[in-house]
Amino acid sequence: MKKHNFSAGPSILPRVAIEKTAQAILDFNGLGLSILEISHRSKDFEQVLHQARQLFVELLGIPSGYHVLFLGGGARLQFAMIPFNLMKSKAVYVNTGVWATGALKEAKMFGEILEIRSNVPNFTTLPTDYEIDPTADYVHITTNNTIYGTQLKKDIDSPIPVIADASSDILSRPIDVSKYGIIYGGAQKNCGPAGVTFVIVREDLLGKVDHKIPTMLDYRVHIEHGSMYNTPPVLPIYTMMETLIWLKQLGGIQKIQQLNEEKASILYKEIDENPLFVGTANVIDRSLMNICFVMDKKFKELEEDFVIFAKERGCVGIKGHKLVGGFRASTYNALPKESVIALVDAMREFAKLKA
Amino acid sequence: MKKHNFSAGPSILPRVAIEKTAQAILDFNGLGLSILEISHRSKDFEQVLHQARQLFVELLGIPSGYHVLFLGGGARLQFAMIPFNLMKSKAVYVNTGVWATGALKEAKMFGEILEIRSNVPNFTTLPTDYEIDPTADYVHITTNNTIYGTQLKKDIDSPIPVIADASSDILSRPIDVSKYGIIYGGAQKNCGPAGVTFVIVREDLLGKVDHKIPTMLDYRVHIEHGSMYNTPPVLPIYTMMETLIWLKQLGGIQKIQQLNEEKASILYKEIDENPLFVGTANVIDRSLMNICFVMDKKFKELEEDFVIFAKERGCVGIKGHKLVGGFRASTYNALPKESVIALVDAMREFAKLKA
Repeated sequence: MKKHNFSAGPSILPRVAIEKTAQAILDFNGLGLSILEISHRSKDFEQVLHQARQLFVELLGIPSGYHVLFLGGGARLQFAMIPFNLMKSKAVYVNTGVWATGALKEAKMFGEILEIRSNVPNFTTLPTDYEIDPTADYVHITTNNTIYGTQLKKDIDSPIPVIADASSDILSRPIDVSKYGIIYGGAQKNCGPAGVTFVIVREDLLGKVDHKIPTMLDYRVHIEHGSMYNTPPVLPIYTMMETLIWLKQLGGIQKIQQLNEEKASILYKEIDENPLFVGTANVIDRSLMNICFVMDKKFKELEEDFVIFAKERGCVGIKGHKLVGGFRASTYNALPKESVIALVDAMREFAKLKA
Repeated sequence: MKKHNFSAGPSILPRVAIEKTAQAILDFNGLGLSILEISHRSKDFEQVLHQARQLFVELLGIPSGYHVLFLGGGARLQFAMIPFNLMKSKAVYVNTGVWATGALKEAKMFGEILEIRSNVPNFTTLPTDYEIDPTADYVHITTNNTIYGTQLKKDIDSPIPVIADASSDILSRPIDVSKYGIIYGGAQKNCGPAGVTFVIVREDLLGKVDHKIPTMLDYRVHIEHGSMYNTPPVLPIYTMMETLIWLKQLGGIQKIQQLNEEKASILYKEIDENPLFVGTANVIDRSLMNICFVMDKKFKELEEDFVIFAKERGCVGIKGHKLVGGFRASTYNALPKESVIALVDAMREFAKLKA
């Protein structure tokens, strides 16, 4: 049975990227060697790193003055790297969920934090109409909140550099990179497997703090060495490159945005119309990447049953995060529309049986 | 033509680990999903993590009181993590090469460093008969020096905790783990592909420093979360697990030590007997993992020729590091004896033609 993979991350990847990775593991570029056992300084791998970087630049329209880094350690290591590299005295953190809270807590080790959050509890709603202190060093935002299913669907205006954790919606919609100081994220949602973190960084922001920065946490070191200061995560970078090639061949960011909007609208429409299900996020803040919903309170006891029912129809990974409960369908770039339709069909069938 | 892969790292892996990885990428455990696209919190991956950890414990005989962590960020990130977690005021660093120097330089950010090194220049000889200041917080050693081809082939006695970078000889010979505070290394030499770092850490050493530790750099956080505080490098951990299974099935550490000694002795014998070649490391310090040699000075101009000559016979990755020049044959666990024989044959043939 075909699996419809709604996992929140690590998550579905284009089949072609998976197949090319398996091939490169058996024999990379016809070298008679696996990509797992060649030097990261070989021409063949340097070409992979170069191409992955170029595809980021091309797909997102990254202007000059920015560098694209591919690092190990996870996006969570960035929670410390950002204040290490940028914080002189204080920073603004827009707190929109678990990951934003994690970034904020880490930054408190380095200086004063001005927190902005919505008055609506439980992170179901994004804050609006806030002012950003122009004397702070930077403002940190999380563009998409995987756990609560909210998404900031436009670039914000800010008098200070905007640092964005875009782990779960990078490359899903056009962004104006010039409005950001740093855009970073784990690859394992929308652009690759676990093990590599992308960092798009505006070089002129760096080198302005007084404290010492551990070498591996200093963006300038990684810029200077082109992400090769130490052995990079070779295989995750390769699969990411193949995922970016797939995205380019599909038609790039405009095309994927259209497909993502279409998938999300099909699923949200069903959530809103089906008597069993209720969306959890504030409607205008709804994410196009992580679609969170629960059973209407009259049917609460059916939640486990529906997870099983959907799984029997090939829909896997739809159990909601424990903080929200219910269901979460992650509809990242690589998820085909047919998977959304399969889930909608399961929701309808289940409603016929139970409502 | 069969390739004989002498790369210094990332380096040769057992063919069975490569084939199982390719299979898990196409369909993991018959789930109908790739290992690249499943949740790291799925039972199937948790089992991988557990098994990799257990195999480390079993193969190395790790006693209780120690934890085995699998982290991202590279062994180089450990250069900062070690002083962050352990340094109160001063530490001893035994400087035996480029990587040891890197660890030492990083630690200077955190306190006073007492450096021990050999009087012999160019790191061809390991220091001996040194005293370790018993009032220092720890002593850092590098068990095998990939670039210079020297190896400390026994566990040292120390009045303070021994912290060992064992990136390039872990699992190649028995060690008495109880004589170490921390043993760490990148997997990409002897136990897996690039992208994962193992850390074997004695828990009672932790929590004794006064300064704050960034969350992702705090060993206690990773211990508490069983290497799942953040999304771990899933695929590199899987391939590492398959490599450890291969090692266990082969007969474990005693058996691999015997094979490694045999391979190294065949190659060193040829270096010592062949009129064209000269070993670079002090004989008693010679590494069983990275065998460094150059052309005798009478034949210096033939070095490039020999690299090509060997490559034509399938022997790849033998060019020496630029700091030493000449040749480096890395003979890690997964390199079969037949590859060493192929290289020795090439050396003999070349000598017949040129000497």
